[in-house]
Amino acid sequence: MEAAPPGSSRPTEPGPCLSGQRGADHAASASLQSAAGTEPGRHPLAVAAVLPAGGCGERMGVPTPKQFCPILERPLISYTLQALERVCWIKDIVVAVTGENMEVMKSIIQKYQHKRISLVEAGVTRHRSIFNGLKALAEDQINSKLSKPEVVIIHDAVRPFVEEDVLLKVVTAAKEHGCSDYDLEFGTECLQLALKYCCTKAKLVEGSPDLWKVTYKRDLYAAESIIKERISQEICVVMDTKEDNKHIGHLLEEVLKSELNHVKVTSEALCHAGRHLQQIILDQCYNFVCVNVMTSDFQETQKLLSMLEESNLCILYPVVVVSVHFLDFKLVPPSQKMENLMKIREFAKEVKERNILLYGLLISYPQDDQKLQESLRQGAIIIASLIKERNSGLIGQLLIA
Amino acid sequence: MEAAPPGSSRPTEPGPCLSGQRGADHAASASLQSAAGTEPGRHPLAVAAVLPAGGCGERMGVPTPKQFCPILERPLISYTLQALERVCWIKDIVVAVTGENMEVMKSIIQKYQHKRISLVEAGVTRHRSIFNGLKALAEDQINSKLSKPEVVIIHDAVRPFVEEDVLLKVVTAAKEHGCSDYDLEFGTECLQLALKYCCTKAKLVEGSPDLWKVTYKRDLYAAESIIKERISQEICVVMDTKEDNKHIGHLLEEVLKSELNHVKVTSEALCHAGRHLQQIILDQCYNFVCVNVMTSDFQETQKLLSMLEESNLCILYPVVVVSVHFLDFKLVPPSQKMENLMKIREFAKEVKERNILLYGLLISYPQDDQKLQESLRQGAIIIASLIKERNSGLIGQLLIA
Repeated sequence: MEAAPPGSSRPTEPGPCLSGQRGADHAASASLQSAAGTEPGRHPLAVAAVLPAGGCGERMGVPTPKQFCPILERPLISYTLQALERVCWIKDIVVAVTGENMEVMKSIIQKYQHKRISLVEAGVTRHRSIFNGLKALAEDQINSKLSKPEVVIIHDAVRPFVEEDVLLKVVTAAKEHGCSDYDLEFGTECLQLALKYCCTKAKLVEGSPDLWKVTYKRDLYAAESIIKERISQEICVVMDTKEDNKHIGHLLEEVLKSELNHVKVTSEALCHAGRHLQQIILDQCYNFVCVNVMTSDFQETQKLLSMLEESNLCILYPVVVVSVHFLDFKLVPPSQKMENLMKIREFAKEVKERNILLYGLLISYPQDDQKLQESLRQGAIIIASLIKERNSGLIGQLLIA
Repeated sequence: MEAAPPGSSRPTEPGPCLSGQRGADHAASASLQSAAGTEPGRHPLAVAAVLPAGGCGERMGVPTPKQFCPILERPLISYTLQALERVCWIKDIVVAVTGENMEVMKSIIQKYQHKRISLVEAGVTRHRSIFNGLKALAEDQINSKLSKPEVVIIHDAVRPFVEEDVLLKVVTAAKEHGCSDYDLEFGTECLQLALKYCCTKAKLVEGSPDLWKVTYKRDLYAAESIIKERISQEICVVMDTKEDNKHIGHLLEEVLKSELNHVKVTSEALCHAGRHLQQIILDQCYNFVCVNVMTSDFQETQKLLSMLEESNLCILYPVVVVSVHFLDFKLVPPSQKMENLMKIREFAKEVKERNILLYGLLISYPQDDQKLQESLRQGAIIIASLIKERNSGLIGQLLIA
């Protein structure tokens, strides 16, 4: 049943991340690690998670069980696994799925390169599924890669936005109150049964509004919008090193900053074998604007696309690349450059296979400064729309600002 | 305080509608009317609604009170008013808003042409606001246009998806159980207070999953997606009467039908002074595809736009119009037609003012049947994307299939 994760270095989720490089996050995660007893030199508390995922989602009103419903073309359960996976002190994650969904689940683990996951067969009820998961963790099987945990977190497969601090509260409460298993679904029948019939102490742990459960179709819509918003928080403007081109690239950067005040806009050159750019890709920026000045070829854009294809950035989320071409429409009517620019459709089809959404954008480059500002602003609105919607139906289109 | 609604004929919401022409809905609404005592010849039960809307929405995490947050550029409370308004047996709708939001509320009523609405000042608590609303209904003021109701429905301003059948259940329960006011927020402190302290009988009325409350930002996202989905259920393909053009128009219609199996796709000619088309507009279709064959002018599209501008269809929801131009790219490279086609940007800016989202779409029209099918399929994917996203940042763009 063990689904061996392929060795890989695909990125984890944006946001607080245990292995992250960012100062603030790092400090926060250090204190979290300490509380979970996982800081270096101390015997770590053995924590595992069980995900009952055998439900059929009849309230959703769609034929697919809700845990397998796609959000940005990726099944919901993969987001939940990603959220648990990035908590390094959770040693094993056991997912209970029905026999008929076993192969689907294996292919999800394979495709999105999930780690530390084991699969067990779901029972006829949620409780049976949890039981099967716990049994797998408790058994001393010779071939089992699972280690016997001290605390088991029971987590719904359809709560994708669980944060590490809530999980830590659960583990801490379990340690203190000695619950045998712990249910994140507050006020659920599980906890009530435990309170009523079991010899265990139970304690309600305060959750966060983010810990909501995808139950109805509207929740899928909400989840998709939240995820889109999360991966649209940073845009990198990529330009070559020529002074002229840098100048217009920086102007576009400034306009993007003022039009999108909640978004971090950075700029990077494609030079130095793209060292800095590599770091931005590693840091999980999912949006790139590639600046081309007075040219209708795609050399620069192709360099960027190659770097993105080589990285594992696109495994979890679709990456948006806007190939911007600045042309003086008075000197060169856009129609003259069309033939060459239309090649973007072929590139877009190719890179879509690797989960990159490529769009083209012509921005008018007039001599007049005021007119230039206006066309930059138009361009920024279009770039913002493309990034926000992440619409795969419009890839390869050549938009005009 | 009375906000007089301007006389108008703007459409009500898509979906079950009391004054609708559609067979099935009509039958259902007839039985609803009967139960509410509103069928012709019988003295109607006087029903009013009070909407406490004085909250500040601190849980939303945005500075605007949630009832005023925009969904497709229209404030949330306008959707709730629309839902109550289309129930013809609700005679008066009293909205309690804070003094500082009074002008905003008046302009919303004006802009979206809401009817039967009165405004009162909100109190410091939700209960005080409800009290103020009830007082306005109970008072025998000489200048008041309000009639004293027998039943008052208390409805949250942030539950936009309330359906008539639920409202009717509430009214029926109130009639039978004699509650003095009735709260749709099940299990709320209001109902509990009534049960505990008042001499009124109270009864829980079963709601529907649609009756959810917009509380968090994620609920706004969900509401926007639901509304977008609702107004994307019908597409009308508009074409002229020439045989050749009708042929390709019908081919596009067929491909749209097979690509979008949950959507109703109809076709209409622009002839007969657009009589049939007028009916489709009256029946609240919010999506139009205007077919132009071997031409890069916008005569047909402009006729359609004029009809839409003259109707009141666009007051409540943005209407999508895709101006499709079939061109044989081998005979006429798209670049040759570009100059003329670029005019669409100006048209799009103009009609945006009237809440019409206009996009251009070139579809390749090759001689080869198989290639034609492929370009029609590409075109259908783009049309579906434009309708689904209703993205105002991309209006006036010329897309290519």
